[in-house]
Amino acid sequence: MNTATLDAGHVAAQYIALWNETDARRRDDLLATHWTSDARYVDPMASADGPAQISAMVGAVQQRYPGFRFQLKGPPDAHADNLRFSWTLGPAEAPDLVEGTDFARLDGGRIQSVTGFLDKVPVGA
Amino acid sequence: MNTATLDAGHVAAQYIALWNETDARRRDDLLATHWTSDARYVDPMASADGPAQISAMVGAVQQRYPGFRFQLKGPPDAHADNLRFSWTLGPAEAPDLVEGTDFARLDGGRIQSVTGFLDKVPVGA
Repeated sequence: MNTATLDAGHVAAQYIALWNETDARRRDDLLATHWTSDARYVDPMASADGPAQISAMVGAVQQRYPGFRFQLKGPPDAHADNLRFSWTLGPAEAPDLVEGTDFARLDGGRIQSVTGFLDKVPVGA
Repeated sequence: MNTATLDAGHVAAQYIALWNETDARRRDDLLATHWTSDARYVDPMASADGPAQISAMVGAVQQRYPGFRFQLKGPPDAHADNLRFSWTLGPAEAPDLVEGTDFARLDGGRIQSVTGFLDKVPVGA
């Protein structure tokens, strides 16, 4: 049930774009535009405090899993400043190798915090 | 992937117990034990700030839907102070009439905030 005043689809798409952006300067631009300056991120394996740490974390994941791409899975869902969406991550031959769901809180249309959970991980991971 | 230090199952069970508790005094006890004094709740239809508002909200939902019960759906998932779990709500003859997923943040093992989302609502609702 979507009662959002924010454009959930746009915010989620820009979030996915950040994770797929391999150019650090363009990541900084995305963070400056779509995230607050005090934004925080946490998932079961990593946490980051502020845009610089978030950009570095994204770069580290890209280096560890070269060629992997994030994609939105299903429609984002939102109410007031609260957003959730699911995603897939993997290489071209297995685009849904990993799946997860992220919850975000927004402030003035910008992402202020993201808490990620994993829905599917490769057997043996 | 569960990397919790908290007892996610216990916290989620106590959360469901609160929603099913029709005695206001016992609700106050559950809130005092398992929630922080500044706890907040928000979902697409309601929000509450502090234990007294949260208890009143639960009572109002019970009055509107007499006989409905909440049940956990699947295992709760947690990492650090972040918890998510899904639930069903309905009368005895249709226990999964409504389904949702809640995301909670904990502080010292107590629920500090809950953000709820709806996964399934009755047709026509």
